[in-house]
Amino acid sequence: MSNIKKDPLKNQIEVAKGGLLDRRRFLASGASLLSVAAASSMSGMASADVFDSHPKHMKTPGIPSKLYGKPSQYESHVVRLPEHVYSSAIITAAFTPIDQLNGVITPAGLHFVVHHSGIPDIEPSGHQFMIHGLVNKPLKWSVESLLNYPMVSRIHFLECAGNSGPNIIANSPMDMTAGQIHGQISGSLWTGVPLKYLLDEAGIKPNGKWAMCEGADAGNHVRNVPLEKLYDDAIIALYQNGERIRPDQGYPMRLFVPGYEGNMNVKWLHRMEISDVPSQSKDEQSQYADFRADGRIKQYSFNMEVKSVITKPSGKQQLPKDGFYEISGFAWSGRGKIKAVEVSADGGKTWATANLEGPIMSKAMTRFTIPWNWNGQKAVIVSRAIDEFGNTQPTREDWISRYARYSLGHNNSINSWLVSNDGKVSNYYV
Amino acid sequence: MSNIKKDPLKNQIEVAKGGLLDRRRFLASGASLLSVAAASSMSGMASADVFDSHPKHMKTPGIPSKLYGKPSQYESHVVRLPEHVYSSAIITAAFTPIDQLNGVITPAGLHFVVHHSGIPDIEPSGHQFMIHGLVNKPLKWSVESLLNYPMVSRIHFLECAGNSGPNIIANSPMDMTAGQIHGQISGSLWTGVPLKYLLDEAGIKPNGKWAMCEGADAGNHVRNVPLEKLYDDAIIALYQNGERIRPDQGYPMRLFVPGYEGNMNVKWLHRMEISDVPSQSKDEQSQYADFRADGRIKQYSFNMEVKSVITKPSGKQQLPKDGFYEISGFAWSGRGKIKAVEVSADGGKTWATANLEGPIMSKAMTRFTIPWNWNGQKAVIVSRAIDEFGNTQPTREDWISRYARYSLGHNNSINSWLVSNDGKVSNYYV
Repeated sequence: MSNIKKDPLKNQIEVAKGGLLDRRRFLASGASLLSVAAASSMSGMASADVFDSHPKHMKTPGIPSKLYGKPSQYESHVVRLPEHVYSSAIITAAFTPIDQLNGVITPAGLHFVVHHSGIPDIEPSGHQFMIHGLVNKPLKWSVESLLNYPMVSRIHFLECAGNSGPNIIANSPMDMTAGQIHGQISGSLWTGVPLKYLLDEAGIKPNGKWAMCEGADAGNHVRNVPLEKLYDDAIIALYQNGERIRPDQGYPMRLFVPGYEGNMNVKWLHRMEISDVPSQSKDEQSQYADFRADGRIKQYSFNMEVKSVITKPSGKQQLPKDGFYEISGFAWSGRGKIKAVEVSADGGKTWATANLEGPIMSKAMTRFTIPWNWNGQKAVIVSRAIDEFGNTQPTREDWISRYARYSLGHNNSINSWLVSNDGKVSNYYV
Repeated sequence: MSNIKKDPLKNQIEVAKGGLLDRRRFLASGASLLSVAAASSMSGMASADVFDSHPKHMKTPGIPSKLYGKPSQYESHVVRLPEHVYSSAIITAAFTPIDQLNGVITPAGLHFVVHHSGIPDIEPSGHQFMIHGLVNKPLKWSVESLLNYPMVSRIHFLECAGNSGPNIIANSPMDMTAGQIHGQISGSLWTGVPLKYLLDEAGIKPNGKWAMCEGADAGNHVRNVPLEKLYDDAIIALYQNGERIRPDQGYPMRLFVPGYEGNMNVKWLHRMEISDVPSQSKDEQSQYADFRADGRIKQYSFNMEVKSVITKPSGKQQLPKDGFYEISGFAWSGRGKIKAVEVSADGGKTWATANLEGPIMSKAMTRFTIPWNWNGQKAVIVSRAIDEFGNTQPTREDWISRYARYSLGHNNSINSWLVSNDGKVSNYYV
């Protein structure tokens, strides 16, 4: 945007160094600030100019709607980042372009995807879900029967345990977009059947404490989930953002354990075996353990911790010139609600409290914003979130000191972006 | 589902006639009710059976994810209802299959669509939004500049003024689905720039009271909106459900006036002319006036009123047999939040209060549910919503008495479904 003139800025109060502005003051007199920023004056324009400007698409009828609509052809660059094949050549992941999106809901077509042996094509009439093991009565359900069960609908985030891994692996910050680094998180409205109904129906034996949850994919993905969690807020998700969940999210059904790492939300779910101890599945052993700095292994670290990312401005974006911007991003915690997000524009020396867009929901992405007057000089913008239990984000340095150098799961350290004096935005370690 | 045995029902309390059950009691002992309903016992099943049941897709690797994902091929029937061409042959509409969906968010690909001359293909770099007329400084904005403005994100419904028209036109209830009758409503997370910033930037002259809002489509859609509303909660919507809005929803930008009838949320918005009186546009004159029973015309009836629809079970669905079901639907009000939804299973003689799925948001779809034990006899299920201001829904008879017989806009009368003793569900007038 353009140069800030003196008058509008007079009304503004800097709430932290580097041009972070007071939100209320901005709302009260922001228009005068904006007025010098982005709009072009049309003073003296004759009304004929308005009508002469009518483009071709106002003179020729358009096309009918599609039975199932699609985004504009001019947004065809907004796609998942192509599937990344990890060294195992089995696990592949496609990230959400969070730097291209806004709000706290991710379109299902852009939800991040991770799978261990491709996406199965499951004909729903041939699929069943069963609960067996330490139960009074082993039971199985058809998809159709589950669709008749009582359901709940809740907005939650889903995040891969390995999200933001690039910022751990690389000793110096890689020049990547927010989506390339942090795009293994998405937000959806998930609708499905509370697990407690199904567990009670089968009747858990007194020594039943864990459920081995298995997906019907060729990777035969298996995770062990404590029954306590399944009785708390877990569902068999059948719908995502209003429609039936899609094959890449587990069609015809997936386990959804709010706040837990992505891979525990077992896709293509077809079986739960109730046991007294966890079964130590191959996936837990080979993929989803955390390695501590002291050489010990931390297993069953289920919760995704409190975290935040600024998406606007963010890596590889370009600010056209100095002046007014809104810093915007989102925060989340696998333990509950976001209580506050603080933003710094001077690399973490001074902080201001951002505005949170409500309603603030538990274990859901929460959008935060703060007005910013960029003076055109080098700036480092940083965010840190605090959840309702007072948990906050460690620095990258703190985080790394706790884990083995090759362990990258559960990185919730503070993220930052460098804005160079030419307006280029790039990944940065504070 | 199947027969209800005596034991589980003993624990249940009927809160209204016809088998509507107490929700708390149901939650406490619902499992025993469900246990006789939907699951198949696997008692005696050897663990070998579990593994022998592994289907082909567990033995062969699946496919990679798409850059922009799609629903399962087995859900290809879940599409918008094909565009309906009205007598004018100009206005066409495609409805949302609300009977196939759940939750309170509609995937953008299934959002209902109405347009007056097709969907324009707008290249965003050539599109501008201008405010002129009774302003101190006529201004225009490029799409790119608006994308840098401060934004808000809110979940709201959008409903066509003509929604549920079939239930007014037809003297006897037509055998249609909930989508075919009531599918001109959808819910989304809308993100965009508050209009107040832009209006203040242009500077409204003291006699400026209305904005003539024009779309850049060949239909040249125009509606007059009071400035008071634009200063309240209106936005220039740039994102829907996280991604840029789609061509059929107004790409690259639309006006969004929460709670107002759909056509006022002018798509492909490119111009607002501020005036002292409304301009009496062709659309207001020919399409969007309400005709009273006494012959007088009611113009500028902006708000969509409080309303509710049961989607499960609903028209043309089939209940397999008597037993337990969850009645599920959604309610909304263009004036604010939903306060309560009452459900009847005996055609409106007795009523019970349904559970509302939170968070309850203003001018947004709110999902309601209530457990129901269907005794297999003819039943008429009905819902009526009450908003935070105490507004409720009229009966169809009441509604019709107020309007000319051919006037079908703003029908918010009570809807009901007949469940025949063979389990067939059909449209019904109470």
